[in-house]
Amino acid sequence: MIITIDFGGTNIKIGLVDQGKIVGRSNLPSYSDKGMIVRLSDVEQEIKVLLKRQGSSISDCSGLGIATPGLVDVENCVILSINEKYSDAVGFNFQDWAREAFSLPMVLENDARAALLGEIAYGVAEGEKDAVLLTFGTGIGTAVIMNGQVVRGKHSQAGILGGHFTTDVYGNECNCGNLGCLEAQAGHWALSYSVKQHPTYFNSVLSKCSSLGYSDIIEAAQQGDQVGVDVLEGLLNHWSAGIVNMIHAYDPETVILSGGLMKASDFIVPILRERVRQRSWTPWGDVKMVVANDPDVSVLLGLASLVCEE
Amino acid sequence: MIITIDFGGTNIKIGLVDQGKIVGRSNLPSYSDKGMIVRLSDVEQEIKVLLKRQGSSISDCSGLGIATPGLVDVENCVILSINEKYSDAVGFNFQDWAREAFSLPMVLENDARAALLGEIAYGVAEGEKDAVLLTFGTGIGTAVIMNGQVVRGKHSQAGILGGHFTTDVYGNECNCGNLGCLEAQAGHWALSYSVKQHPTYFNSVLSKCSSLGYSDIIEAAQQGDQVGVDVLEGLLNHWSAGIVNMIHAYDPETVILSGGLMKASDFIVPILRERVRQRSWTPWGDVKMVVANDPDVSVLLGLASLVCEE
Repeated sequence: MIITIDFGGTNIKIGLVDQGKIVGRSNLPSYSDKGMIVRLSDVEQEIKVLLKRQGSSISDCSGLGIATPGLVDVENCVILSINEKYSDAVGFNFQDWAREAFSLPMVLENDARAALLGEIAYGVAEGEKDAVLLTFGTGIGTAVIMNGQVVRGKHSQAGILGGHFTTDVYGNECNCGNLGCLEAQAGHWALSYSVKQHPTYFNSVLSKCSSLGYSDIIEAAQQGDQVGVDVLEGLLNHWSAGIVNMIHAYDPETVILSGGLMKASDFIVPILRERVRQRSWTPWGDVKMVVANDPDVSVLLGLASLVCEE
Repeated sequence: MIITIDFGGTNIKIGLVDQGKIVGRSNLPSYSDKGMIVRLSDVEQEIKVLLKRQGSSISDCSGLGIATPGLVDVENCVILSINEKYSDAVGFNFQDWAREAFSLPMVLENDARAALLGEIAYGVAEGEKDAVLLTFGTGIGTAVIMNGQVVRGKHSQAGILGGHFTTDVYGNECNCGNLGCLEAQAGHWALSYSVKQHPTYFNSVLSKCSSLGYSDIIEAAQQGDQVGVDVLEGLLNHWSAGIVNMIHAYDPETVILSGGLMKASDFIVPILRERVRQRSWTPWGDVKMVVANDPDVSVLLGLASLVCEE
């Protein structure tokens, strides 16, 4: 059995995985504004409760996998750089923690890479050797596999920064220090900025939303709200450009779309598929575009497959 | 000895390479608006003259390497997609030609990849294992090496399309079918479009240039011409964004800059270096930025190193 933990911005998802199946699940609130490290004792406790509930114990487990957003040093199990809320975890020795808490070996991986591995091992892209994943959550995470090998690069940061390719050189400041990143133009955290910039914002139904999500904008657009229509059109252009950039960068057979935005996949994906088909330069044929079934599960299963590899 | 041929838009460069040194050189005009295939008999003739001049013959040669712009199928020595002028060469069987003309085995490679290989084997990035190259010529070509392996991807097109990452989602139509590609915003072929869009174009010294080059814009900007200043600022933003995107995509230690623009490297590179340093997300340290010494030579030497590998 393998213990897997996914540190999301809203929830910490914990899973017990056995033979590629989730046999136990639990969620804890992240309280991410308080940091990550302060949550570790609760996580440890919750895992022990979960094991007990399964009639298992640590001695039935062969390893532990942790996924986090941001840049991770996979070799040394250390977070190199992460969003502000979790910044207390940069440089923290997760290996020591796993050894002390569970006496288990561990792997640390970027969450989008873990999701991709899950989709390749058990999900919508099973067995694919050349694929990219984009996950549209608070930010826009990406990950890449080429010729059956996960792309990590010299400093563990290749493939995961597709949300930080500039898609509008005249665009917004990003939290990474760059200008006009895909994520700063069309990620969840940037939505309210895009909406408030619109000249007729105060006439829009969106001016009444206290916290804006992808679904609010899609609904407003479908109701004919001009701000909704215009902002959605901009988002679709950025999302398509982001996908085309990933195709041009990594030459995949398949693009996997994931994250909260995919709740609206019936509406969004046909539009993205058509724009990407028109704009990508792939004389060999068209890239397949598929939607992840259950993003949370992918991350946990991907982590388990990583632990098994180690 | 290895025969190497670089099909550029203006010149066809031919080199005889022995032990990593160019021992014979010749240039032919491309007449690229007439296509590539029609030039092959002249190229064959020129190679034979060049060999004779060296006191050598085909029997002293072990192989032949050809570099072209565009997308190439390296395995089958076939061009998949290329700019309009050379489009007659798509699908042409170069292997048959090399066999008939010289009875030699051959390799075909994208010109930016060949340039990168030359820089790695004998040039400014000797021995580097993780590097990206951007070459600013008529278009903007790119190439990538990761962990000592040239990045080619499933359909031979990974790493070479950095000029076709969208850097302005609201930008110009590109000749590849995409919108706002780096190359459509800041490549040589797009310069006159950017200049003519400027509201005060007709008051600018640049309105008097019959064919605009990078150097005209740099000179105009240095003389305080407002169109020159504004267009150059836009170009610098796009070039920096293009470099940052390559860094975020491939996680290199070193960025190699090449192509005609580098004639102005003393002026341009310090500005690019500073903007890229500010905008790239590399918590491990700063990416090195180096300038190719002699781009033409790099392509020929890179081809020779490829032939040797085969």
